[in-house]
Amino acid sequence: MALEVGQSSAIEKCLDQESVVQFASLAEDYNPVHLDAKFAASTPFERPIVHGMLASSLISGLLASELPGSGTIYLGQTLKFVCPIYVGETITAKVTVKHIREDKPIATLATQVFNQDGKLAVDGEATVRYIVG
Amino acid sequence: MALEVGQSSAIEKCLDQESVVQFASLAEDYNPVHLDAKFAASTPFERPIVHGMLASSLISGLLASELPGSGTIYLGQTLKFVCPIYVGETITAKVTVKHIREDKPIATLATQVFNQDGKLAVDGEATVRYIVG
Repeated sequence: MALEVGQSSAIEKCLDQESVVQFASLAEDYNPVHLDAKFAASTPFERPIVHGMLASSLISGLLASELPGSGTIYLGQTLKFVCPIYVGETITAKVTVKHIREDKPIATLATQVFNQDGKLAVDGEATVRYIVG
Repeated sequence: MALEVGQSSAIEKCLDQESVVQFASLAEDYNPVHLDAKFAASTPFERPIVHGMLASSLISGLLASELPGSGTIYLGQTLKFVCPIYVGETITAKVTVKHIREDKPIATLATQVFNQDGKLAVDGEATVRYIVG
């Protein structure tokens, strides 16, 4: 099926403590607001929050696996971290085709990550080159 | 020391096969261009490449650990994936203060990731709220 404006795909995932610890090591990001409950209690967040880039990484997976899918090449991404996601929440990442270029197989997709309560936590836009199937 | 325009910080890290496999699982991004040498050989990249979001994740670590450092809250990030990074490369991520708001402790930083040959691979900009120390 050809790519069409309005198509969307979503994935749910629980971002548990183990995921956060693994990501901290990969990103060399040991910000205690993610890893130390006592420290987090002293911040406006009150409890440990997930790394914004960890939550956003699910967008990469969706683009490559689902929409546009296999063969997708990631060209760009914008991210706004709108509200915190707490460790242990099951989040939903969603991508929606917004625009398809007429001259090249390049598409822009709205990319959104929602927290467990359905509130928008990360808002942004991806640009990808896709395989015309 | 107060935050000043022009300040910069950098980190080097080898993104090996193990990092890529771990990130694939966290991001649910099993794009074979990252994981399957035979498949990668059939693409324009010829060899497995690192997930763009994995390389970019080092920016998150730099912002939180080094500049602006502890207490930093990530507000936004733009990313352009300019050239591939191959699995096994030692990359350098760098952040440089570009602008500091006068009304609020909010700064924008240029964020760059260079491949092993010093070529710009990921270009972008971060927006953060920082702790005035």
